[in-house]
Amino acid sequence: MSSTIEVKTGKPYSIHVGGALLARAGELMTAVHAPGRIAVVTDSNVAKLHCPTLENSLKTAGFEPHVHVFPAGEASKTLATYAGILQFLAENRFTRTDVVIALGGGVTGDLTGFAAATYLRGIRFVQIPTTLLAMVDSSVGGKTGVDLPSGKNLVGAFHQPSLVVCDTNVTATLPSEVFADGVAEALKTAVLRDAKLFALMEQGAWSTHLDEVIGTCIRIKADVVEADEFEHGERKLLNLGHTLGHAIEKCSNYTISHGHAVAMGLAAVARAAVANGLAPQELSDCISNALQNNNLPVSLPLPIAELLPAIASDKKRAGSKLTLAVPLSIGNCTLLELPLQEAQEFLRKGA
Amino acid sequence: MSSTIEVKTGKPYSIHVGGALLARAGELMTAVHAPGRIAVVTDSNVAKLHCPTLENSLKTAGFEPHVHVFPAGEASKTLATYAGILQFLAENRFTRTDVVIALGGGVTGDLTGFAAATYLRGIRFVQIPTTLLAMVDSSVGGKTGVDLPSGKNLVGAFHQPSLVVCDTNVTATLPSEVFADGVAEALKTAVLRDAKLFALMEQGAWSTHLDEVIGTCIRIKADVVEADEFEHGERKLLNLGHTLGHAIEKCSNYTISHGHAVAMGLAAVARAAVANGLAPQELSDCISNALQNNNLPVSLPLPIAELLPAIASDKKRAGSKLTLAVPLSIGNCTLLELPLQEAQEFLRKGA
Repeated sequence: MSSTIEVKTGKPYSIHVGGALLARAGELMTAVHAPGRIAVVTDSNVAKLHCPTLENSLKTAGFEPHVHVFPAGEASKTLATYAGILQFLAENRFTRTDVVIALGGGVTGDLTGFAAATYLRGIRFVQIPTTLLAMVDSSVGGKTGVDLPSGKNLVGAFHQPSLVVCDTNVTATLPSEVFADGVAEALKTAVLRDAKLFALMEQGAWSTHLDEVIGTCIRIKADVVEADEFEHGERKLLNLGHTLGHAIEKCSNYTISHGHAVAMGLAAVARAAVANGLAPQELSDCISNALQNNNLPVSLPLPIAELLPAIASDKKRAGSKLTLAVPLSIGNCTLLELPLQEAQEFLRKGA
Repeated sequence: MSSTIEVKTGKPYSIHVGGALLARAGELMTAVHAPGRIAVVTDSNVAKLHCPTLENSLKTAGFEPHVHVFPAGEASKTLATYAGILQFLAENRFTRTDVVIALGGGVTGDLTGFAAATYLRGIRFVQIPTTLLAMVDSSVGGKTGVDLPSGKNLVGAFHQPSLVVCDTNVTATLPSEVFADGVAEALKTAVLRDAKLFALMEQGAWSTHLDEVIGTCIRIKADVVEADEFEHGERKLLNLGHTLGHAIEKCSNYTISHGHAVAMGLAAVARAAVANGLAPQELSDCISNALQNNNLPVSLPLPIAELLPAIASDKKRAGSKLTLAVPLSIGNCTLLELPLQEAQEFLRKGA
């Protein structure tokens, strides 16, 4: 069983969601690319777990895969790793009509997507996400990028994939902490747009509905991205929980993962919405309960006074203003564009 | 006296051409950007010659310039220099509403444009070219990029500037060899599209018509770019002389400059057009004469057999085919899409 979601961005593409799709990736690829030489970029963990299946599938479908492996981990999301991918593509003389596959989590997708966006000023790429987080979040929307010493994702490009293949079985190989990172983004998506999805997830124990949760999250994100591909407005809603979340990641020196930081940020912005009179107490309570039922944290790991300075370097900042995504009820959020200091005061009340 | 050329790409912008415009750059900038903090990127040579004039002009207009200087020279066109520009922008906390000015030649424009295209997934930039080559060629068209160890300009993005300011007086500070690099591109443009421009330039000694030559070249390039912003077709005509030119640069280990290599490539492809029966002998003769009258070389610096393998890594290659721009008469060229080996045979006859 698998389903297909069509994303109608400037360059439309399909996202396939279902079990055991990795073994069918080569076949699915032939719908969009003629068989031939193909680049595969992956990290050292995923290479061992999933690359043989993908390579077999590609070869069976007539592709000739060339694989580039970089060390697994967030620490690899640098311009140096990006340079390594580019050099691999250049040394193998891939041309503008060739395709690169990103096989892995968010780091692999972001790095490979940025390399694809900029190699020869842009070649096609295919996303095969292997983490829940990458499936529900980073594989949709066309954002690619790498970190700088000064901050995360400060460099990048918008570059839509030509195909996304989500093999939901692959999530079974994830450590529980890594799985939970994806759950945080899925809950964020539910709070943003879908009370029914929230109800399905809020007690935890929804593993028999995995394909449905992933498919729904992707559909919602795709809808938002279609409406605002280059993040001039509505797309900023996807940043719900991320303003503080990014600050938490940064102030913890990235010892706290993205998903866990988003969970904390989501709980805190819900408390702030209540404290600022924009939402009832029940909203904050039910968001916190849902996060905790899904093994996610809801308390800030550091005093709010230590986190607030870090939001000044938020990428979403435009001049002296910051746009905050704020929940009003489950499935309904709004954007507040505030001067930096007022945004900080707003969030301070959610500590 | 100055003239203004409007470029109607997806995001339209103006190019100002005239004498003493550097001292008016701040004033011209206020038409497109509100005064405020502004980043200036330049190289160590240009910093000494022209940065004080630009900084004064910016300050007078109410801007607060922050200047980043990198070592002058083609050897700087690397991912490492690009990373340095990005880090400068991040450390100074430039945001999505800020602007970066590229003050310098092609290397500075390409590097800074690529940094602007990718910092925070894209901020605005202004080109102030200081070489003739950058004025007539690289400051128009939105191509940005850097070199890899495997080849030139293998990484980059399309990113249109929001303004270009060409101070034609600045070309007086150029060494004659560097000035000649720009003349080669101007002659290429004339061969491509404008017999009148060719007639103006072919005897050399056209320095009293400098503004006219620069303005005409920019207008022609802008027309081609407007018709094909992302180089799917017609824009490849601008590659006239460049297929062999790039190979010459590469095989000489970049001891031969871009403009001089283009001159050699242009003369050779004209000879090849004659040898392959596509153009009369006079065409090749008058192109060679014009190049020589402008102190530019027309003979290949290496045996053609050594150059041809290098065209296999040409960026314009798509799969196994290569698109050659070929002159038919002065002001009239065509594109030939040929299998790599046939393209090599075609060019071999122009040795």
